[in-house]
Amino acid sequence: MTCAVLSIGTELTRGELVNTNASWLSAALTDLGFEVIEQAVVDDEKERIVATVERLSRLVPVIVCTGGLGPTTDDLTTVAVASALGVGLERDEASLELIRRRLEKFGRTMSDSNAKQADFPAGAAILANPIGTAPGFGVTLNGTRAFFMPGVPREMKRMYEEQVVPRIRDLAQKVSHQIHFRTFGLPESVVGERLAGVEEAFPGVTIGYRAHFPEIEVKVLARAALGADKKSTEDAARDLAERAAAEVKTRLADVIYGDGDDTFAGVVGRALRTRGLTLAIAESCTGGLVGHMLTKEPGASDYLLLDAVTYANSAKQTVLGVDEEVLRGHGAVSPEVACRMAEGARRVAGSDVALSITGVAGPTGGTDAKPVGLVYLAVATAKGTVVKERRFPGERFNIQTLAAYVGLAMVRDAANEGR
Amino acid sequence: MTCAVLSIGTELTRGELVNTNASWLSAALTDLGFEVIEQAVVDDEKERIVATVERLSRLVPVIVCTGGLGPTTDDLTTVAVASALGVGLERDEASLELIRRRLEKFGRTMSDSNAKQADFPAGAAILANPIGTAPGFGVTLNGTRAFFMPGVPREMKRMYEEQVVPRIRDLAQKVSHQIHFRTFGLPESVVGERLAGVEEAFPGVTIGYRAHFPEIEVKVLARAALGADKKSTEDAARDLAERAAAEVKTRLADVIYGDGDDTFAGVVGRALRTRGLTLAIAESCTGGLVGHMLTKEPGASDYLLLDAVTYANSAKQTVLGVDEEVLRGHGAVSPEVACRMAEGARRVAGSDVALSITGVAGPTGGTDAKPVGLVYLAVATAKGTVVKERRFPGERFNIQTLAAYVGLAMVRDAANEGR
Repeated sequence: MTCAVLSIGTELTRGELVNTNASWLSAALTDLGFEVIEQAVVDDEKERIVATVERLSRLVPVIVCTGGLGPTTDDLTTVAVASALGVGLERDEASLELIRRRLEKFGRTMSDSNAKQADFPAGAAILANPIGTAPGFGVTLNGTRAFFMPGVPREMKRMYEEQVVPRIRDLAQKVSHQIHFRTFGLPESVVGERLAGVEEAFPGVTIGYRAHFPEIEVKVLARAALGADKKSTEDAARDLAERAAAEVKTRLADVIYGDGDDTFAGVVGRALRTRGLTLAIAESCTGGLVGHMLTKEPGASDYLLLDAVTYANSAKQTVLGVDEEVLRGHGAVSPEVACRMAEGARRVAGSDVALSITGVAGPTGGTDAKPVGLVYLAVATAKGTVVKERRFPGERFNIQTLAAYVGLAMVRDAANEGR
Repeated sequence: MTCAVLSIGTELTRGELVNTNASWLSAALTDLGFEVIEQAVVDDEKERIVATVERLSRLVPVIVCTGGLGPTTDDLTTVAVASALGVGLERDEASLELIRRRLEKFGRTMSDSNAKQADFPAGAAILANPIGTAPGFGVTLNGTRAFFMPGVPREMKRMYEEQVVPRIRDLAQKVSHQIHFRTFGLPESVVGERLAGVEEAFPGVTIGYRAHFPEIEVKVLARAALGADKKSTEDAARDLAERAAAEVKTRLADVIYGDGDDTFAGVVGRALRTRGLTLAIAESCTGGLVGHMLTKEPGASDYLLLDAVTYANSAKQTVLGVDEEVLRGHGAVSPEVACRMAEGARRVAGSDVALSITGVAGPTGGTDAKPVGLVYLAVATAKGTVVKERRFPGERFNIQTLAAYVGLAMVRDAANEGR
């Protein structure tokens, strides 16, 4: 069943506040089996609220709304909904008493503007707010169930769970199950081409993509129509999602690095940790990004000994022992220096594995022979040193990020292959 | 003049993504003098995109839209807009050539799905995308100017600034002038208290805040109603903004670090560069974040010699020469070790200034004596070494970020004071 999420507030339409309520509610409604087809945000203008509630009530059978229930003059949701229904406001004495008591608990007395929060469109069902002054309410407009909640996230979330979910759960009619994969190594268009035909092969499945440079997240969403037995429908949705996900996994085997909750650095760290391997890094053009990615996550101290960001040539010599002649003869951006950096980091730190990255991140410093984007990456282990040359496209940000990912992938592969 | 922001994408209506594009665009349009009366979000369903574009075109004279321009099958914005206009798609050879070249630069060949991104509704004005494959486009529908841009935030922001603003600026009917300040060192509520009364003292001025942990951006927006003479209105708005900004600057003198386009790392780099000073860093709990912040910006090679991320105690000894007895006697998180790290980094790299950071970033590793959040930071120069103890609140992310900022502030101050 479809539904819509409505958010009311000029602080939203002016962009002063990011609308996290809409995404939270949309995720919760999707989980419940609803298809959210629209999120609407309008400013604190009574006529626009009336028009939008009217319009949505003709579009979807369920509307979940937040905002505009506060005590100030710009809080107009209740009067707007009464106007859309063509009814008056009625004061609810029980709610008034609860508001009075709540204010007293905070050492305050009730004002007219507080009392206004006990007014509801005639006939509305009142939704209790145990952790704030503004109760919510539910009405039926043009056959649509519409629920109005405060905009304060924690009050809204609790009211949704306790008051709204029990009233709409049985309307969802569909049950969905979603499986996520995280990939690195292919652009979105190629990932999409690899998965051509999967939706057709598994009716009820939708494939979604989300780009987070340089990663592409792939989402497999399966929906099943609600049968007599909710449990068996849930099983059917999960089974469908799992079958489609297995196909996706086969087609993207070389680029999927983990599931929904994994991070690339986390997966690399896990590969090292499970094998009891230690790591040293020598960065140049990535300037500390690899170390930052690994140490953003807790637990890097299990394996990371050293990240020597040897930005100047002098530091490459002093800290990593790279020979001055090698630097002069081949230049800092060369396979030779990459190898010496990795070997030097491994020796200095006494680690099992060492990664080095040296390149031209730009925007300046490129030459015909060594253009912006040219990067050398080396991994040194007890079995020897391997070096890769890559030419990364894009701007400084892209080059640094891609270099860090490719370097981390080399570390992961070395750990997994026991190299 | 009113306008609306439209976002297209099932990842939004499913709540998988928080709609930061809508708030960013709304803030930018508000700054430009527009009144954003609605934000709409619809899923990747052609008929719903058509209906929403139609509806908004009858509501507002300007629509700014993001999303659905990608290469995959769920990207339907272009066909939907063509359908709303009642026109066909036309392939733009110039765009096709740019896409081809961009893909070649990345070592890829063009597929049908990439080529699709060169298709536009007949008669559309093409909006260049210098940093991505999907160009945007602008059309006029029912007299409304509508602009369609990719959903990738950095591509969208650049296209909006370079392509959309010049096309809509004159429609705003209000002239506004905005001055931004970037601050670090106070929470948003305290920044707000410091600026109490500024709006009242300068009628026509709105103060806005945007939190980007750990920074607070302060926006001074002055508006003047468009008179007969646009030039004099612009002058009036600028003059008002400048007078209010001077007051803001006085009240926040101790925490403003720069203007709209500055970054904190950029300001630190500038302080070193203008004095011809070189820098070495020794990081522990920040794991490379300081180096990453400095080298994300071009030009760090002017001053940065070395960032030794000595995560393991053994690396603190080998690379920085920190005495084993000092480490054993005081522990790695101690003022003594912070000083030895900074002095070691300065000696090894031969730099003018050296910064060290050692602490407990958590979530584990804290003790009663050295709890999570305890960080020591030291700066060594020819004049000696100063060390600071700080206790940062929050989670790992907050602690690492605050430590990096405080460390960079110490380097800036040392450079500016000629220490």
